[in-house]
Amino acid sequence: MLVPVILSGGAGTRLWPVSREGLPKPFMKVAGERSLLQETLLRGESLPGAERPVVVTNRDYLFLSRDELDGLKGAVRPARFLLEPFGRNTAPAILMAAIAVAQWHGDDAVMLVMPADHVIEDRAAFAQSVAHAAALARGGRLVTFGIRPTRPETGYGYIETGDALGGDGLRVKRFVEKPDAARAREFVQSGTFLWNSGIFCFRARDMIAAFDALEPAMSKAGRDCWTASSTATSAADAIELDKACFDGMRSVSIDYAIFERAPEVAVVPCSIGWSDVGSWKEIADCYAPDAAGNRSDGDVMFVDSRDTFVLCDGRMAAAIGVSNLIVIDTPDALLVADRERTQDVKKVVERLKASGSDKHQLHLTVARPWGTYTVLQDSARFKIKRVEVKPGASLSLQMHHHRNEHWVVVSGTALVVNGDMTLTLQTNESTYIPAGHRHRLENPGQDNLVIIEVQVGDYLGEDDIVRFEDRYGRVADDAPAKRAAA
Amino acid sequence: MLVPVILSGGAGTRLWPVSREGLPKPFMKVAGERSLLQETLLRGESLPGAERPVVVTNRDYLFLSRDELDGLKGAVRPARFLLEPFGRNTAPAILMAAIAVAQWHGDDAVMLVMPADHVIEDRAAFAQSVAHAAALARGGRLVTFGIRPTRPETGYGYIETGDALGGDGLRVKRFVEKPDAARAREFVQSGTFLWNSGIFCFRARDMIAAFDALEPAMSKAGRDCWTASSTATSAADAIELDKACFDGMRSVSIDYAIFERAPEVAVVPCSIGWSDVGSWKEIADCYAPDAAGNRSDGDVMFVDSRDTFVLCDGRMAAAIGVSNLIVIDTPDALLVADRERTQDVKKVVERLKASGSDKHQLHLTVARPWGTYTVLQDSARFKIKRVEVKPGASLSLQMHHHRNEHWVVVSGTALVVNGDMTLTLQTNESTYIPAGHRHRLENPGQDNLVIIEVQVGDYLGEDDIVRFEDRYGRVADDAPAKRAAA
Repeated sequence: MLVPVILSGGAGTRLWPVSREGLPKPFMKVAGERSLLQETLLRGESLPGAERPVVVTNRDYLFLSRDELDGLKGAVRPARFLLEPFGRNTAPAILMAAIAVAQWHGDDAVMLVMPADHVIEDRAAFAQSVAHAAALARGGRLVTFGIRPTRPETGYGYIETGDALGGDGLRVKRFVEKPDAARAREFVQSGTFLWNSGIFCFRARDMIAAFDALEPAMSKAGRDCWTASSTATSAADAIELDKACFDGMRSVSIDYAIFERAPEVAVVPCSIGWSDVGSWKEIADCYAPDAAGNRSDGDVMFVDSRDTFVLCDGRMAAAIGVSNLIVIDTPDALLVADRERTQDVKKVVERLKASGSDKHQLHLTVARPWGTYTVLQDSARFKIKRVEVKPGASLSLQMHHHRNEHWVVVSGTALVVNGDMTLTLQTNESTYIPAGHRHRLENPGQDNLVIIEVQVGDYLGEDDIVRFEDRYGRVADDAPAKRAAA
Repeated sequence: MLVPVILSGGAGTRLWPVSREGLPKPFMKVAGERSLLQETLLRGESLPGAERPVVVTNRDYLFLSRDELDGLKGAVRPARFLLEPFGRNTAPAILMAAIAVAQWHGDDAVMLVMPADHVIEDRAAFAQSVAHAAALARGGRLVTFGIRPTRPETGYGYIETGDALGGDGLRVKRFVEKPDAARAREFVQSGTFLWNSGIFCFRARDMIAAFDALEPAMSKAGRDCWTASSTATSAADAIELDKACFDGMRSVSIDYAIFERAPEVAVVPCSIGWSDVGSWKEIADCYAPDAAGNRSDGDVMFVDSRDTFVLCDGRMAAAIGVSNLIVIDTPDALLVADRERTQDVKKVVERLKASGSDKHQLHLTVARPWGTYTVLQDSARFKIKRVEVKPGASLSLQMHHHRNEHWVVVSGTALVVNGDMTLTLQTNESTYIPAGHRHRLENPGQDNLVIIEVQVGDYLGEDDIVRFEDRYGRVADDAPAKRAAA
């Protein structure tokens, strides 16, 4: 038995403008139709003996993550979710997962911890490495996956390997922080250093014991958190981790807290086509180049250009006489960067934050538990939205003080509460909701519902909303106003 | 008396994606709030003794050109328009203008011919040069404006100067085609070569006499064309040049046809801050650079970049670690080019034409005699448009077979014909127009009217339109379906 545990966090600020707080890196599609999270779920599912996966993520991403699972149409069995109230690095996440897995599957269950935002191109080789790791884990080892380095990368941590342990495993001599270029070259030449991948394998009991021994305070806080959380929650598949108890664990990586200090640590060297796709340069490398080294995603025309990556969403792009560029085009923000400077994307995100812009946070298309909305036009006195509602989903029963709304159904069927009336609108039918009217939009059909909403009024801020009922628990939501909207 | 004659043609394909057939270069704004055509109109108006301007343009651009004049709010007196059925280079345009000016102002009227798509930064120096040119023109000379070269430009034609004629004028020794780099350097060093600007000054009688002597067939065709056109037309301010007669004139530049062959040609050397802004590189030079040589128009963030020009329309852009780039961002197309390769933009336009795309032709916002429309979203079964109608303007009385339309007034007041009803809609009111209903949208107010139109139907092509009445004469329009729409 093997329990895939997927750590789905990480803002991916170096992947702006595609990765933003509202839809971060695990939800990105890289050179394919599936998101990184979906690929990770499938990778876990394909392993022999794989159990239901456990996804540890921020509670803001529960509905988005469920949508990703649903999008796999049953190819992965239903996940269990552990919902963090806020990010606390990997140690608390892995401790809570170990406690939960011990509860659900027993102490001896072997866990495979995988970040949701990595690319692994060779799934067969990965399965082979997991088999080796699981064997070591069943012997009581805490196992980490070490990637055989293919270049003197300065962006990763390294693992120096020691004696062989049998079964393709090696002792870990030491963990090394990100090196400078000279040391990185030495490491690669030595043949005894591996990249630290952030993928781990161990029995639940061994990880809990390691915390007990090395981080007793965290261990206690984690058990308390489990007790408080598992009894407070009602949802069968999602456990919301208790805020106060979770806050009692310190923010530290599992490497620092456990792996660098535990005695029984092993590493399995792998060549599995791994990348942490941490920057646009690495994303670009996932696409096949043309003869001139250009790569693209979307409607792109290259004229006398080389070694350039262009990603277009909706619009067309032409590149003339350029080289070594990264061009990332999204509906409301464009990035043009030198290929070797994509680490500096985070500087842009910092400046955006400082300037009060929300372009590091929200996309024009915003995900909601019930579907999405896209702002098509935003003017002083009117705003146009395309609202897409999933089958069976419903927006909250709500009211606006300042804006009137015109709804036109352009696809599917809508069940609408408008003041005292309840009406069914078919495609090409419309209704008008004056300010002050309670209203609700629901999709009673089997297909997606799409409406065009024309808002007219003196004030069109998303915070002009009074919620009366909400099936997603957002009536007393304490999320920021911008996120709570609609 | 001086009659400004403005030649407003030229697709400006090297300025794609901003300049497109539907809204070409003269309508572009360069480093300011006014279009190049508006700047040219103002330049003419500011000259001593300036008469009503004559604008020679394609008939497709009449309404757009009138809008540009209206936008100047009376700062330029009403123009007269000579409307070409198709482009025929400068000789036919200037001949027709000379015939028209002789008719309206007498044979002795002095004409100042200016392309609508140049930049002249020093208007006072220009006025000075025009004064010299006009004096020479009154003495019977055909005068051309020669720009003192500031660099060994290979993109312009040159004029070699001869003896002084008094009043700052010189004889023209010869006209020289665009030189290679070595010859361009010689020309600049010699001090006797000037750039051929395409700006001319002469009396109407002298130009007509020159055509009589040098191009008698064109001269006759031009007179016939004038007779056929001026009697056929009814509009007071716009004369549509007769297609068949206009077709009788050969397509040739005024330089080839007249200036290189006429005996009495003079040139006035000028230093007037002139540019033909023929490429993005020259457009960029019209903007003030920051300390790193970066220039921008719009919401642009530079990080460690230099000598880069970014133009953004609506979206934000960030440039990281790049240099010598031109980035032009429009709602549906993006251009990223090396600063020295902007001549190759025309290659992109050629490829677009060959591919059947309309992105070399139309913008997302399309100009119409009555205003504009912008496609906000285009799906298989529905389309969203923002329709903006000028005060007093009206769309045609029309009908669609396949699409239903929902109209929501979001700004201003609409007078709507919908089947048998005529209704007045205020802001925040709506109406529904089923397929098969005759309808008309009119703006009876003093401010712009803005409606959001949601189209729903099986077929949403612009050619699903039956026109019953149109105040812009488009009922029997023979323009292509795409242009004739709405």
